[in-house]
Formats: sequence, structure tokens, C-alpha cells
Amino acid sequence: MEDHESDFEPRIITSAGNADVKLLRSLHERKFRRKSGWFLAEGVRICTEAVQLGHAPVRLVYAEDRHSDPFLVPLIEACRDAGGRTLAVSEDLLVRISRKDNPQTVIGAFEQNFISLEQIVPKGVWVALDRVRDPGNLGTIMRTADAVGAHGIILIDECTDPYSLEAVRASMGAIFNVQIAQTNQAGFLDFARSFDGQLIGTALPASEDYRLANWQAPLILLMGNEQAGLPETLMQACDQLVRMPMMGRSDSLNLAVSTGVALYEYLRHQPAKSGGSPE
Amino acid sequence: MEDHESDFEPRIITSAGNADVKLLRSLHERKFRRKSGWFLAEGVRICTEAVQLGHAPVRLVYAEDRHSDPFLVPLIEACRDAGGRTLAVSEDLLVRISRKDNPQTVIGAFEQNFISLEQIVPKGVWVALDRVRDPGNLGTIMRTADAVGAHGIILIDECTDPYSLEAVRASMGAIFNVQIAQTNQAGFLDFARSFDGQLIGTALPASEDYRLANWQAPLILLMGNEQAGLPETLMQACDQLVRMPMMGRSDSLNLAVSTGVALYEYLRHQPAKSGGSPE
Repeated sequence: MEDHESDFEPRIITSAGNADVKLLRSLHERKFRRKSGWFLAEGVRICTEAVQLGHAPVRLVYAEDRHSDPFLVPLIEACRDAGGRTLAVSEDLLVRISRKDNPQTVIGAFEQNFISLEQIVPKGVWVALDRVRDPGNLGTIMRTADAVGAHGIILIDECTDPYSLEAVRASMGAIFNVQIAQTNQAGFLDFARSFDGQLIGTALPASEDYRLANWQAPLILLMGNEQAGLPETLMQACDQLVRMPMMGRSDSLNLAVSTGVALYEYLRHQPAKSGGSPE
Repeated sequence: MEDHESDFEPRIITSAGNADVKLLRSLHERKFRRKSGWFLAEGVRICTEAVQLGHAPVRLVYAEDRHSDPFLVPLIEACRDAGGRTLAVSEDLLVRISRKDNPQTVIGAFEQNFISLEQIVPKGVWVALDRVRDPGNLGTIMRTADAVGAHGIILIDECTDPYSLEAVRASMGAIFNVQIAQTNQAGFLDFARSFDGQLIGTALPASEDYRLANWQAPLILLMGNEQAGLPETLMQACDQLVRMPMMGRSDSLNLAVSTGVALYEYLRHQPAKSGGSPE
């Protein structure tokens, strides 16, 4: 007998052999994220953020005893309304799906959403990352990009996956609020030539102090790989190359930190209503 | 027969039961780092940095086939000159000591070096961290502190260990170039009252844009815990509370990023010869 109540007394899934459970578990691997076009995000906070931004989960897994949790109910409804499937699971399965001993009580699977270079609007600021390797750095950069109101991220060549659990976690929800494009170096160089704005790269050999640069929007901030920095070909494509003063022994900053310092410098030079300095 | 050559034809250690090997392996745990007062640093680059800054390793482990590597020789000499012990080990043991499948060919054990609050000189900038939890954040903050010429870090209450392998790795050598003090909240508040300079905290409820603050040195930049931010008691001790503009959905930045943005703002307000803005 079907009735309204049945929505809130779900059948509890306890078998690791369940097809949805198997698919969700596979999303820890990039290969299966690519194949399915899905990714995992953990926790009520980030899943709620996703739903508020119009991204309903395609699958929503939650601890069986939470099915009437007031924070969970809107997520369950959003998932079902969008044609997704909700799964009440045992604690044991939640551990297996999350691969953590103390998992969040909610895990959502969402559709990846890459944009093409043609969809990039020449407004404000974009961040281009050349072969970024560390998922924590990439997630943190998405978080900072969101914080300064950047439109999105352009990933050049082999980058770490923005949809890995670690990158998503470090993004603190920003994964749902910044656009992401991916390309190779030739594709980026083509795109940069036709981009109606400037390209600013950060580089050790740069002679210009970042505080003296022209940060006029629209612009792309181009950051190099953690170990190698920017290759010559990408440096040559830049309208300006800037550096940060280094007063200690180190000759470089962590990539997420230098991107943050540069993005806040960009913000300073915008009109006050867009976050510019109120001075 | 002893001669000069014997220095360069070391006995190779292959047993995991060797006392030094056991001690070095134990340094992955905070408990044993506390007990011994030692910590591990991996790689020729960081060990060389340490030696150049006057920190000779108390133990130096290296892959048996590298004993005449020109980069390794000065490290071996520095270790021996300071009364330390060098250990040529098999690849297998290097894997066990480093706990990595592809270990660096050199691992040094060094003496920890905490300073007391009384040793803190009221000059330039110091960074105080309240209950910092993530070793990557702490290491990255040490790296940035070094980059802006900060004198050191003050750890308040239960913080992640600055001498963990992950924090040391993220510091990229800065662990050897910044001073580190640790205290509890009451100890910090006492210290801050007598500090001959100002205390600037970053806080969400702060109404002052960080770009309008007075960044005159000497100062302590006080940063709160990743999840909770600064507690009321610490906020009340600050001369100024500042915030960064947040233009997106996020209401906060990653701790290492916000510390970096604040430290580079500090730098901007110093004389040009100290890294201040050349404008």
C-alpha cells in the first residue's frame, strides 16, 4: 500500500552489493567519476548549499536514523523532485561509501558541470591554473575565487580533479558556485589571444611588484604548477608578469596562498561596491 | 684499520631492529617526538637548508648507494661534526622510516627548538594561532611567515604539532627559520598585556576592513581556529579586529590563505626596504 507516510519510512539498504552503493563507492576514483559524470559531496551543510544553488543531488545517501531530521528533509525532497534516488543506509554502509571511520550522516552524488571555453564571459576575474597537482590547493583556490567573486577556474593540461572528494571538501561548497573549464596549453593560448581582457601571470623571474601592476578587469590570473611554476610559453602570453616580495629564506609561497594574495590585490583595485578598497 | 676512506664506505644497516631505526620510526608519533625532543625532515633540499641555518641533524639516514653524492657529503659532515650519527640504510628501511613508497633518499632527525614567551622580541610581526588543527595549514603559515620576514609563531592551547612530518613538509624549510613558542590562553593573554606593540585579530564580526587598519609594527597577528574562529576572550584582548571582504557565498577563507592575505597587508604598510609597497 502506497501512501504519503511511506516517504518517511524508507527501506533501509544494508547490502554493499546494492547497485547504487557500488556506483557511489566507485566515485572515489577519477576513472569512474569521468565515466559517470558524477561526484560526491559530504555533509548536510555542503549538500544544502548545493540545493540552494540549484544543484539537486542525483543520489542522496543518509544514515537510516536521520530520515526525519529537519535539515535532511529538504534535501530528500530536492533529490526526489529532480528525479534522483534517496537511500537510507546502515552506519556500516555509510562508512564504506565515505571511506571514513566517522562519516558525515549525509552524502550526495551530484552531476559534474564543466563549461567550455566559449562560455567564458570576459567580465571580472577568472583564475587559470597550469597543471595544479594538489587537490587541497585546488579546492582552497576555488573557495578563495568564490570569496572574491571570481567567475571561475580554467584548468590547463593535466590537473588534479576538481571533483575529487578532497578538492570538493577544501572548496567548502565553492565547487557549486564557481564555473570550471578545462583545456590544454594550446587551447588556452588560443583562448587567451581572443579574450577581451588582460592576462596576468605570477612568476619568480617577474620584475614587477604585484602591488604596482594594473589590475583592471576583465582579467585572467594565471598561476603555475606547485613545483615548476609557469612554463616559458605561458609566461610569454601574459600581458603582465608579477611577483610578491619575499623577505625570508623561501623563494616561493604555497600556491593557494599566492593565488589568495593576488586575488585580494585584484579586489583592492575594483570599485568599492565590488569589494574594492573603501579608502 | 681506520682511515679517511672508511668515512665513505659505511656499514649498511638493513635491520628494522636497529635502535636508531626504531627511534626514527617512532618520530611519526607526537608522543615520541615529545619524549625525544626530535623531529624528522625529509629530502636533501630541506636538510641542506637546515644545515645552512646552523641546525645540524642529530641523525642522518640515507640510501646506501648515495654515500658519495656531492649534495649529501656536506650533510654527513655537518651531522658528524655536531656529534650526530649517520646511517646508510637499505631502500627497504628507507621506506619503513619514511612510511612512503617512494621515499626521499635522505631523512634527517633534528632537535626541536621551542622558545619561551620571554624570548619574544617586540619587533616586526609575530603570528599567534589559536588551536590551529590542520598540519598543512600550520606548515603553510610558517612558510608564509618566513616569506614576509615574520619572526615567529605563537601557538595557543591545543594546536597541531609544528614538528609533525606533514607540517614540516608544508613549511618547505621555514620550520628552521621561524621561531616557535607555545602557551595556553591565560599565558597568551598575560603576555599580550605586556607586549610592547599591538594585537590585531581577524574575526567575522569585525566591522573594520583589513585594508583600513593600522598595521604599524611591532604587532601580533592573531588568527582563530579553522572551524570556530577566535573565542570572545581573545577577541577582547585585540587592539583591532579586522575582516576581509567576502563577495561570494563563502563566509570565510581557508586559514592559511587569510593569514597570507593579512601578512601581505602588513608588509605593504612597512618601509620599502622591509618589503613595503614601493608606491
